[in-house]
Amino acid sequence: MIFNQYFYHPDLSSSVATLSTEESEHCCRALRHKVGDQVLLTDGKGCAATAVIMVDNPKACMVEIQEVQEKNDRHKWHLHLAIAPTKNIDRIEWLVEKCVEMGIERITFIHCDNSERPRINLDRMNRIAVSALKQCQTTWLPAMEFVPFKEFLEKTATWNADRYMAWCDDQNTRQFALESFQHEDIILLIGPEGDFSPAEVQLAREQGYAEVKLGNRRLRTETAGLYGCLTIATKSLE
Amino acid sequence: MIFNQYFYHPDLSSSVATLSTEESEHCCRALRHKVGDQVLLTDGKGCAATAVIMVDNPKACMVEIQEVQEKNDRHKWHLHLAIAPTKNIDRIEWLVEKCVEMGIERITFIHCDNSERPRINLDRMNRIAVSALKQCQTTWLPAMEFVPFKEFLEKTATWNADRYMAWCDDQNTRQFALESFQHEDIILLIGPEGDFSPAEVQLAREQGYAEVKLGNRRLRTETAGLYGCLTIATKSLE
Repeated sequence: MIFNQYFYHPDLSSSVATLSTEESEHCCRALRHKVGDQVLLTDGKGCAATAVIMVDNPKACMVEIQEVQEKNDRHKWHLHLAIAPTKNIDRIEWLVEKCVEMGIERITFIHCDNSERPRINLDRMNRIAVSALKQCQTTWLPAMEFVPFKEFLEKTATWNADRYMAWCDDQNTRQFALESFQHEDIILLIGPEGDFSPAEVQLAREQGYAEVKLGNRRLRTETAGLYGCLTIATKSLE
Repeated sequence: MIFNQYFYHPDLSSSVATLSTEESEHCCRALRHKVGDQVLLTDGKGCAATAVIMVDNPKACMVEIQEVQEKNDRHKWHLHLAIAPTKNIDRIEWLVEKCVEMGIERITFIHCDNSERPRINLDRMNRIAVSALKQCQTTWLPAMEFVPFKEFLEKTATWNADRYMAWCDDQNTRQFALESFQHEDIILLIGPEGDFSPAEVQLAREQGYAEVKLGNRRLRTETAGLYGCLTIATKSLE
């Protein structure tokens, strides 16, 4: 239903907004919205708004923002997923789409000693996230970044969060899905195909990361990421 | 690690086995195994075996089966996912791969009133399932089939199972993830993009299917399938 279609505009504070080229295209060309049509916007920060199209230009659609609503579709627990991008980028793009559908707070792509991918196209990742946001009508767009593993540990060292590291060690029997959380924010580290290096594991341990298993099977990196995301989503229902 | 690589052979009961062309290719050409190499086999029915290559023919690799082991990597709860294939087949292929990684008992592709895809290539689905099986070193290959919705309800009517239908009704607050199960077997129905028709919903209700939500967001069909699969996997840990 067209009326249920969200369009993304990061700022809903002003009374008039001009949608991005991409959103204007989608709104005025693909969905053929015309002047006077009412549409729904989200800022990706938890708010949705009704708006009326003033200029139906497919390159720069202008809308008048009417009622802005705070939608509460954030989970009780906020997952900050720190994951090493897979060699095959499709798998990470897929993960981003699914994480947005399921609901996630932040995604940090970490560059690890065993990473096979030196860089990632964050613009493309954001486009994928936005289209998933619109598709599943949620209002929460996760912040995304790409930083070296060590830097990530440093910048998050002072955060009030529960810290976990998915670590494929047969001795380890602690299950992430059975944890009870102490903080609202949960950081989950997931390593590259070649797993974390011993030095990285040591570093994380020193930062108070608890080693957990994601079930009892060997999961691909992106499946592990989704496992973490879905675990938080279902635990938030309890 | 090559030694951890599984090869698929549906029957481990005889002492000598000839791998399929596909498996022989993978074993003798891709991984360059030679006569005398020890390899691991799984029958996809919960068993794994060590075997030694007798003939390293990349079209017909012959192995001598040694020790057969019953692996217990089946979940406590057995999910039978009955899902309408998506219009975009990639999404269902992806779902099959993920379900095998997570562990699932059966997948039935149901043809519904609002289905946009009249048929599905089960051979291809099985190949995807087998490669996922090998990839994540599990020994459970889900049975897959494609049947009309009504026929599915009829053939499963006598099963001892908990029955659920994922149904996008805002009135419905019952969460699948919070259910406590009565039977080992769980049937979960997931409809097509256009959802179940009122007649199908009515039919399922008469068969004792309980309507449940999969979280509080609108999920794509394949994401809903994975949500169900992952919920069963984590509930099996409790």
